[in-house]
Amino acid sequence: MLTFEGDKYMGAAAITQKLTSLPFAACKHQVTTVDCQPSGPAGGMLVFVSGALQVGEVEHPLKFSQMFHLMPVGPGNFYVQNDMFRLNYG
Amino acid sequence: MLTFEGDKYMGAAAITQKLTSLPFAACKHQVTTVDCQPSGPAGGMLVFVSGALQVGEVEHPLKFSQMFHLMPVGPGNFYVQNDMFRLNYG
Repeated sequence: MLTFEGDKYMGAAAITQKLTSLPFAACKHQVTTVDCQPSGPAGGMLVFVSGALQVGEVEHPLKFSQMFHLMPVGPGNFYVQNDMFRLNYG
Repeated sequence: MLTFEGDKYMGAAAITQKLTSLPFAACKHQVTTVDCQPSGPAGGMLVFVSGALQVGEVEHPLKFSQMFHLMPVGPGNFYVQNDMFRLNYG
C-alpha cells in the first residue's frame, strides 16, 4: 500500500496508476540519508530515506522523506509492502 | 531498536541512555503530518511523522522526520520495535 502526501492507494493497479499519473515527465532524486532496520521475524526490512527531488524544469529542489517496508518473497527477492511519501515543505 | 541521525542503538537500556543524554533540557515538537499503515499479519503499525522541533532557547525550529514500528503486546498495548529519526537540514 502507498500513502502519497496523505492520499492512500491499495494494490498494485491503484499504485501504478497514481505513480504514472504524476504531472511531470522527469524527476531527479538526490538521496541524502538512508537508514535500515529489520522489521521482525518474517524477514522484512524497513528503509527510511530523505533527500531532495527536482521536478521537470523547476529550479529549486523539493525536500522529501519516504519509508518503505520490504518483505521477502523467495530467496533474495523482496516486494514493497508499505510505502509512505511526504514532501517536507520549507 | 533506534536509529538516531544514523547512529544505532539496540535494546531499552541503550536507547534510554541515548535519549536521556541529549544535550538540551527542553524540546517542543510541532507535528505537521502523521501517516499510518498496518505492517503485516502480526498486527503491527507503521507510523510516519514529519514536523519541526524547537530545542531549548534556539529561535529557529529544526525540521525532522521520524518513523515508528509499533507491535502489539496484549490487547490494546503496543511497544516500539523500530524507531528511525532524522533532522531535515535546510
